[in-house]
Amino acid sequence: MLGVAAPWLEWAGVAVFALTGALVAARKGMDPIGFMLLATVTGVGGGTLRDLLIGVRPVFWISDPTDVLVCMAVAVLVFAGGGRFPVRAGGGRRRRLILWADAAGLALFSVTGAERAIAFGASPLVAVALGTMTATFGGIIRDILANEVPLVLAREIYITAAVVGATAYVVALHLALPPLAAELAGVASGFGLRGLALARGWSMPNFQPPADGA
Amino acid sequence: MLGVAAPWLEWAGVAVFALTGALVAARKGMDPIGFMLLATVTGVGGGTLRDLLIGVRPVFWISDPTDVLVCMAVAVLVFAGGGRFPVRAGGGRRRRLILWADAAGLALFSVTGAERAIAFGASPLVAVALGTMTATFGGIIRDILANEVPLVLAREIYITAAVVGATAYVVALHLALPPLAAELAGVASGFGLRGLALARGWSMPNFQPPADGA
Amino acid sequence: MLGVAAPWLEWAGVAVFALTGALVAARKGMDPIGFMLLATVTGVGGGTLRDLLIGVRPVFWISDPTDVLVCMAVAVLVFAGGGRFPVRAGGGRRRRLILWADAAGLALFSVTGAERAIAFGASPLVAVALGTMTATFGGIIRDILANEVPLVLAREIYITAAVVGATAYVVALHLALPPLAAELAGVASGFGLRGLALARGWSMPNFQPPADGA
Repeated sequence: MLGVAAPWLEWAGVAVFALTGALVAARKGMDPIGFMLLATVTGVGGGTLRDLLIGVRPVFWISDPTDVLVCMAVAVLVFAGGGRFPVRAGGGRRRRLILWADAAGLALFSVTGAERAIAFGASPLVAVALGTMTATFGGIIRDILANEVPLVLAREIYITAAVVGATAYVVALHLALPPLAAELAGVASGFGLRGLALARGWSMPNFQPPADGA
Repeated sequence: MLGVAAPWLEWAGVAVFALTGALVAARKGMDPIGFMLLATVTGVGGGTLRDLLIGVRPVFWISDPTDVLVCMAVAVLVFAGGGRFPVRAGGGRRRRLILWADAAGLALFSVTGAERAIAFGASPLVAVALGTMTATFGGIIRDILANEVPLVLAREIYITAAVVGATAYVVALHLALPPLAAELAGVASGFGLRGLALARGWSMPNFQPPADGA
Repeated sequence: MLGVAAPWLEWAGVAVFALTGALVAARKGMDPIGFMLLATVTGVGGGTLRDLLIGVRPVFWISDPTDVLVCMAVAVLVFAGGGRFPVRAGGGRRRRLILWADAAGLALFSVTGAERAIAFGASPLVAVALGTMTATFGGIIRDILANEVPLVLAREIYITAAVVGATAYVVALHLALPPLAAELAGVASGFGLRGLALARGWSMPNFQPPADGA
């Protein structure tokens, strides 16, 4: 993690995103290798894009494969036992679990992406942009590989939550909060907003296409 | 831009591609953050791929966020006012505006991509390939994220225009034209060809699939 | 190729993947530039991702454009002559040729990806992961650009063959086999498994989605 203050944030983000990848693989009825692929690209995809853009080389999981192991363990666990636990109570349980785990990953990676960008000297605006991309990229690859409409296109508040999480973290740092407090503020803001959107179906004011539908 | 002769080419390309991203967001009825995302990935996507492949690190918009600011400004302007201006006269206006702005971005980035590749020591062939990828990548991401059929697959002359623009630039340089003249030659060739294709529906001789349809 | 033991493996992988790209372009009735684009991104896409992740810069085809030339030559040959040879005997011939050439590229790149990862100091696990990504990425881009369902999602054994090929190579190296023998073991394992899956319709035990279909 090269000097990032709290590796647990990164690990937690990797694990919950890997969980969403494995659950999408379950929805698609994939084989064990498909589970591992989707769990791994979702879990490490965002951080990989972040490292590529910043110029860290090699990307983090090549020098330290811990995160890849975490993803594979999650994939194996979900394949072996996942058919049971998320469906004890009728339809829709698994889909809801995917959405909430994705929300947690979104909030965590928006902060770690911004954090690492700052550690490499990025300006606040770039840190927010990079945090947002880090947070959304894993899920985008997951959905494209699984041939689903990307969550990122959902009308609900989604990218906005990543922007808010990264911004809260950056602002908290500028207010001279200690790193851990800034991280918690960022994660709580992002997850809180996305969670409210999920629970209440909140959406942003969207663009009204004119009548001609061009 | 690290030694690129004419930063205005890059800025112009970023702005028109950002415009196409924002207009696609408008077609999809996205929220303001969706506008910013699509405008930014379309505007800086091509240059980002170019920098990654050449090995510039970090990529250009991390060390200098001007281009990201341009993209966001375009997104805000289109969201705030875009519902009106491109649709004053019935259907299809916005789609046509997207196509022409995309043509300008295609021509501009085919030259800047080739230019930067040469600045980093690439051979003429690689410069053309890299110019073409730079020119087409932003639009490809835009269309994939917006769940549309990529423009790059259109039967009209599209990639060809990028190849022609980059080639004209490289050839002009080899004929010892001054950099600005070579740039203008490249942009004019690429935009001219793509514009003619748009205006007259030109297409390339395409492969005739045999009767069995395999 | 920067110290990779057997460049022929890489060249062979590039050529067969370029062939699949050109054949997909033929299925789609693309123009010559579309043939070149699909052949090139399929042929060099996997190695490009590999180099980006490892941190080689610039990526291999920028310092040495041989592979790009190979891809373009394949594209031109298939465009000029391809309408004839793969369809002499009724329907499905071209599709089957795509599948078998893709199998060869998959096996070759799983080994070269792992090989280059090891040359840059990666652990065995990462070498297998990187070999697998190298082997599957070109085909994924090809299928996304051509707007087809990625082969990687096929129920047949596909990614598994890449994992097996890369693993066989890494294990053979650890058993102190000479590099060439290890390469051959890897390619033979991967191609053999994928070929058997193609010939016999083998598939992996897949996840049984629970009844609620969530």
